[in-house]
Amino acid sequence: RINAERLLGRLRTLGNIGRDEGRLTRLAASDSDRAGRDAVVGWMHDAGLEVMVDRIGNLFGIWHAGDANSAPLMLGSHIDTVIDAGIYDGCYGVVGGLEVVQTLREAGVKPDRPVVIAAFTNEEGVRYAPDMMGSLVYAGGLGVAEALATVGTDGTVLGEELARIGYAGPHEPGFLRPHAYLELHIEQGPILDREGVAIGAVENLQGISWQRVTIDGVANHAGTTPMAMRRDAGQAAARVVTFLRDLISQTNAPTVATVGCMAFEPNAINVIPSRAVFTVDLRDPDEDRLRAAEATLARYLESLADAEGVTVVVERLAQFDPVTFDPAIVAAIEAAAAENGLRSRRMTSGAGHDAQMIARLCPAAMIFVPSLKGISHNPREHTQAADLQAGANVLLDVIRKLTHV
Amino acid sequence: RINAERLLGRLRTLGNIGRDEGRLTRLAASDSDRAGRDAVVGWMHDAGLEVMVDRIGNLFGIWHAGDANSAPLMLGSHIDTVIDAGIYDGCYGVVGGLEVVQTLREAGVKPDRPVVIAAFTNEEGVRYAPDMMGSLVYAGGLGVAEALATVGTDGTVLGEELARIGYAGPHEPGFLRPHAYLELHIEQGPILDREGVAIGAVENLQGISWQRVTIDGVANHAGTTPMAMRRDAGQAAARVVTFLRDLISQTNAPTVATVGCMAFEPNAINVIPSRAVFTVDLRDPDEDRLRAAEATLARYLESLADAEGVTVVVERLAQFDPVTFDPAIVAAIEAAAAENGLRSRRMTSGAGHDAQMIARLCPAAMIFVPSLKGISHNPREHTQAADLQAGANVLLDVIRKLTHV
Ligand SMILES: NC(=O)NCCC(=O)O
Ligand SMILES: NC(=O)NCCC(=O)O
Repeated sequence: RINAERLLGRLRTLGNIGRDEGRLTRLAASDSDRAGRDAVVGWMHDAGLEVMVDRIGNLFGIWHAGDANSAPLMLGSHIDTVIDAGIYDGCYGVVGGLEVVQTLREAGVKPDRPVVIAAFTNEEGVRYAPDMMGSLVYAGGLGVAEALATVGTDGTVLGEELARIGYAGPHEPGFLRPHAYLELHIEQGPILDREGVAIGAVENLQGISWQRVTIDGVANHAGTTPMAMRRDAGQAAARVVTFLRDLISQTNAPTVATVGCMAFEPNAINVIPSRAVFTVDLRDPDEDRLRAAEATLARYLESLADAEGVTVVVERLAQFDPVTFDPAIVAAIEAAAAENGLRSRRMTSGAGHDAQMIARLCPAAMIFVPSLKGISHNPREHTQAADLQAGANVLLDVIRKLTHV
Repeated sequence: RINAERLLGRLRTLGNIGRDEGRLTRLAASDSDRAGRDAVVGWMHDAGLEVMVDRIGNLFGIWHAGDANSAPLMLGSHIDTVIDAGIYDGCYGVVGGLEVVQTLREAGVKPDRPVVIAAFTNEEGVRYAPDMMGSLVYAGGLGVAEALATVGTDGTVLGEELARIGYAGPHEPGFLRPHAYLELHIEQGPILDREGVAIGAVENLQGISWQRVTIDGVANHAGTTPMAMRRDAGQAAARVVTFLRDLISQTNAPTVATVGCMAFEPNAINVIPSRAVFTVDLRDPDEDRLRAAEATLARYLESLADAEGVTVVVERLAQFDPVTFDPAIVAAIEAAAAENGLRSRRMTSGAGHDAQMIARLCPAAMIFVPSLKGISHNPREHTQAADLQAGANVLLDVIRKLTHV
């Protein structure tokens, strides 16, 4: 069985790297990301793994086992976080994978193929879009050069930041072609917690659409400009925000829409906004419904431009189709849960994950554990220690099945 | 007649102080405000005026004329600007007043009382609320100590900034009690331009209500959180923005409402906003209607808090009742316009002005000149040179009437 104390201790350690005035923010390729990566590299060395880094900064710890020529089993996730984050999202998959490998090594078992722990770059997509960038590049879905040239919300360039923190590695993304990929993660949603189920066997993952919308109106005086003569970019932006929710609430679909970023210019109390820039995050497990929601938004933006006398420019930041995971691995997860005396259920992931990208390369699936009240991307994100331990033990048993030990 | 070239040259000079990459931003008590003040002080000295500064940084140039014991006639406005501003708002009144005094002195006329040019601190209210702060303090409507302690949008304290730029003067605000006050200003609205009228004789000024609203919701994951389980501070804020316009468009009232500032936290693409902070600028020439609009907004915010599961905190930043100017001065403006062969009309000011505060101390009124297409608080703010010249000549003649020269 895995060493729960070591697992939890490492989660706590990572959870304090990038903490400032109580808030944890470890954005991709930042100084705190460097410090987090340094800690993970240290643990990889402790576990006797060979550490390798690819050009997009993905970090790998390799256990050379079994037939050196056989494709490795890959376990992983990411250690970058959102702003004001919890400590489990991503880190649990990296630290949990590491724990499983270390446990197996300490037990002296001999897997029939190499096992690799991966920590992918920039999964959150908060500083650089799209999300899941490191695994996307690894799977060949985005060119390395293009990804490295990405300009962040703070004006930095990802490639320069990776070089600066010392994690622009020499290896070509995709250099290890995995036999299978497994990712342990907190659910980040309310289902397991609400139903009192310990293990989610994730069988699919919804589609994700990210867009940035820029609305240009005309700045004018807040006191002298009659309402009918305004071309108010902020008013137009607010109408998009309310439109999106009203649109979804007219249906029974599980579509979700979020406007997470919003900025007005010049952002002065007595000036009608000349510009509003905001993001739209749209998701749906059904690809057709997701495309239809995008199309409805596009038509609304056109009519809004006419009605409000503004111009609207849309940039696409991410577009990922829904993904179906490997049924055999999903079944293995269910079996391992049962063997551990744990209730499990099949489920859909609402969040994006590196597994959805690596699924382009090999059979993949995910193990979810409950998130208290479904809270994530929030400092109050929490998973019970017993659930963290149980999830890692299920991962351990799935790895044993897949490597025949 | 006034020297139009000197007037326009000074406007252009001030219009380049605080210009950065083409954008003019000269916020109250900033480094560029200091540079602008230094230029005005130089021109006051050129015109032979004594320069005095009060504790809130109001700048005065005094022409000692007539009976030294009689109350001075005061002309003025402000030189601070909004963000990405035009060059006329405020500066025209200061430079125009200076031009009139310099013209009268050069002509060797002898007014029967002192004439003072005032440049009031922080009229725009963009960095420090409320607006018209310098004149408000001067008129006794706000304590000096309280005003100096105001914290700005950038976290600075006004008193410290005034001291830093060397414009925290020794005089007690109100130290010169004016006999009458006149302010020359661009209209900033569309009426004079649309009607082809050269001179506005401003007989009243609408009420102004400024509030800052903070909405707190719960950050959560944009992908995993069902729409019905969200407590989205950004969504709630957007609903306030659209509510305000929809409310006004149901009536025929001239009420205007503007949300000029908006900020989301944590402001990340895949995080439901935990907080939204925004400003509401409400105005109406009718005090009862303005109070009614405030009350309707307050009720809406209460129902919103319930409906959205968020908390709402409102801070009042400014509350100024409508002001009626002095009928005799308004009539003198109309007469002077006619004598100059210019069409004039009586009108209401949509913008707030220092005149509305100084009207608490003495008879006051304002002269407006046309703003091209009604654009202001925008770099495209423009007034024709001939209109600027005409407005200053009307001011000259009103001053002659009021000082019996
Ligand atoms: N798991 C997770 O939070 N991923 C971030 C990408 C997203 O789903 O927005
Ligand atoms: N004249 C002018 O723009 N004043 C600023 C205060 C306001 O009306 O918002």
